[in-house]
Formats: sequence, C-alpha cells, structure tokens
Amino acid sequence: MKEIARGKAKTLYEYDGDHYLIEFRDDITAFDSVKHDIVGDKGYYNAQISAKLFELLENNGVPTHYVKMLEPNKMLVKKVDIVPLEVIARNIATGSIVRNYPFKEGTVFERPIVMLDYKDDAYHDPLMNDDMILAMGLTTEEELAKIKEMALRVNDVLKNYFESVGILLPDFKIEIGRDGEGKLVVADEISPDSCRLWDMETKKSLDKDNYRFDKGDVLAAYKEVYRRMFGELPGE
Amino acid sequence: MKEIARGKAKTLYEYDGDHYLIEFRDDITAFDSVKHDIVGDKGYYNAQISAKLFELLENNGVPTHYVKMLEPNKMLVKKVDIVPLEVIARNIATGSIVRNYPFKEGTVFERPIVMLDYKDDAYHDPLMNDDMILAMGLTTEEELAKIKEMALRVNDVLKNYFESVGILLPDFKIEIGRDGEGKLVVADEISPDSCRLWDMETKKSLDKDNYRFDKGDVLAAYKEVYRRMFGELPGE
Repeated sequence: MKEIARGKAKTLYEYDGDHYLIEFRDDITAFDSVKHDIVGDKGYYNAQISAKLFELLENNGVPTHYVKMLEPNKMLVKKVDIVPLEVIARNIATGSIVRNYPFKEGTVFERPIVMLDYKDDAYHDPLMNDDMILAMGLTTEEELAKIKEMALRVNDVLKNYFESVGILLPDFKIEIGRDGEGKLVVADEISPDSCRLWDMETKKSLDKDNYRFDKGDVLAAYKEVYRRMFGELPGE
Repeated sequence: MKEIARGKAKTLYEYDGDHYLIEFRDDITAFDSVKHDIVGDKGYYNAQISAKLFELLENNGVPTHYVKMLEPNKMLVKKVDIVPLEVIARNIATGSIVRNYPFKEGTVFERPIVMLDYKDDAYHDPLMNDDMILAMGLTTEEELAKIKEMALRVNDVLKNYFESVGILLPDFKIEIGRDGEGKLVVADEISPDSCRLWDMETKKSLDKDNYRFDKGDVLAAYKEVYRRMFGELPGE
C-alpha cells in the first residue's frame, strides 16, 4: 500500500479509492516532537481504544470516518478531507489553558469550553476565533457552527461513557473531516494520546501527561484505560 | 486630584463622583514595556487626536466615555468599569496576526476580523474566544455580541474618516467600559499608539510601529496624522 502521510504516531496508507488504512505506531511525542520515544504496544492500545470510541460515537448518532479494524493496530477508515483545526473541548481547567490564561487548575467549567486551534506545528497550533477561521477560508460559516455542535455532542457522549467506567474527561482533541459528500465526520483518533483522562477517585492521569511531564508509567496508564473499557487486558 | 492608576502612557485621576481625568503623558512603550522612552509632545498629540476621534464616534451614534478636554493633554471622561479585553479590529493583515498565523502581510480582509484579547501583560494579552470569555465571566452573552457589533461600527466610522484624509487603517485596538447604567461605551484612547495608520499612497507607517520597529521618527508621524486631521499643526 502506498504511504500517504507519516504523522508523529500514525501512518496513513492508501487502501482503495474510498478508504485509507491508519497504522497506529508505538511512537510517542510531546511538545512539537521535542520529546520522542517508542513505547512498546502503545499503538495497539490506542488503536483498540479509538476503535471502541468511534463505535460508541456512531452508536450515538455521531458520524465518524471509522469502518473497521483490519489488524490489531490497523484501522480502515473512509477517506476524508481533514479540516486543519484541532477541535478541543474542555470540562476541567488543566494543561495549556491554565498556563496561558488565568484559569485555576481543576476548575470545573459550568459549560464546556470549545477551542479551535489552527493545526500547524510551525505556528505552534495557535487558538483561532470564528472571524479568523472564515478569513482563512478553513470552513464555511455553516460548517463552523456544525463543528462546534459536534464537539459538544462528542464531549457529551465521551464524558458520560468515561464516567461510567470511573474516569473523568477534563479535555480532549478531535479532528474533523469532510467525507466524499462533504458531510462532516469525526476523524483521526480518540485515545489517551488525544484525551485527558483522570481516575475519578485519585485524579491520577491515565493519559499522555504521564509521558509529557514524567508523571508515571505511560503504558501502564493506557493499559488501565483499556482494562476499564474492555473489562480485562488482552490475554487475561 | 487623587491618582487612580498610572498606566504605561496615561495617568488616571479621580475628578469627581462621576468623572475621571486622563492625563496623556509623553511616555511611549512597546513589547510589554521592554522598550520605554519619552517622546516630547506625544501626550499632547495623542490627547488631541483621541478627543477628535471620540467626538467623531459620538457624532456617528457610538457612545464613548469622552466628555471634553480640560487642558491640552488632559481629558475629562465619564467613569466606566473597563471590560478587561483588548477589542481589536483588522482590515489589513500586519503585525502579530502575520507573525502568529499564516496570513500574508498586506492581505486586505474581505470582512474585518474582530479579535478579543485578554488584557493582562502577565499573560501577554492572549487571544480569547467566546466560550472562554463567558467562562471567565468577563461579559454576559448579550454584552459580548454588543462588543463585537461596536468594534465593527467603530471600524466603519474610523476607516471611512481616515481614508477621507489619505490614511489607511489596517487595524486598531479599543477598550470598552460599562457606564453607571451598565451601558457599553468606547473608552481609553484612539490614537497612533492604538491604531495602525498607513499613508494611503506610500503605505508608510504613521503610528507607533515607527517606535516599535525603529522605522522612523515617531513624533513626526504623529504630527502628520494630526496635520491631516486638523488641517495644520498647532501654531502654524
């Protein structure tokens, strides 16, 4: 299969006229790739977690690019044209919003905050507002409204689901693409790489912050998320 | 009179129960005050230019805090409670939007871009979006819509006026305050410190960029803006 793009942790292959294959690799990076390591089996866990969350979204009426898993770490997806925005929803203040704005760590937002960052490492993914997004021609006005609505809908579904398995969802990032008919669908991945996940009791990070800030064993954290979602680890 | 606040280029005094006096000083600063100088007569020119522009806005139905000049560089204004946002409107891409985003210098926007930055040097006046502004409780939803509407209205009035005296208005920053009745009014100043002003023919800067980037004689530029607005320099 022809490689289309090699990202920081995933590789995209041409599968057929309508589909890509996404390989979830074991690479893990942070801070615009200043930090980079290989964490064995991470690709497998992220792929499986993503697949289950895409299925959950589809079952809740949110369209995604997901089709099915072809191998344990290889996902078949519909070809979409990715909107170059990091679509972020936040329920609890942590991370960059606390570093860059006067929000107190751990503040629970009354209403979720949606942020749209321009996806470009060269500019360090800067925050955009509606006027800027439209001036850059990244979306139409109708798409922009729809993207914000989808972010909130995805947040509702994921937050409720994670809470049902004892995990808080402080924030997450998704990407959104246009399918062949121009319909907006959730794309990329939904995993502990792209979500902040905290144990509901201890507030311990079960996500990439373990790697970013050397807080703990990142693979053990991802395995714990998997165990909560699937009931047991593979081979148990 | 009691000093209420000493800003980077203006000092605010308590005048009476309903009014402040703003003294426009000759200080000029840039880059969060990393650069600081005194430019003789600058306070005078900024005060006079601001006064005339506030009058222009009032005559066009935009409420401001301006009452009258008490001395050549001292402005009597209504007491308002300042909304801690830098309200920015942009017609032509230049400055920070070109440094921080992939806009090409000199691009004329089809529709003006309004940006709302959180006014706090400690955070370097970061861009906000609507959700963040509401989560921080900086405005109500109604005020936020009104602020954006005012930014566009002020832009219309100022842009048309400056073009009538041979000056382009690439962008500007205003502040907005709530008066005694909670009504939103344009406050602070409107001057070559807070507006980008380019000669329409030569595109030469007639604003603080002369100081920021050592492009030319900043006082001569401010005097040129005054001359275009008032027809002659004082004493001519």
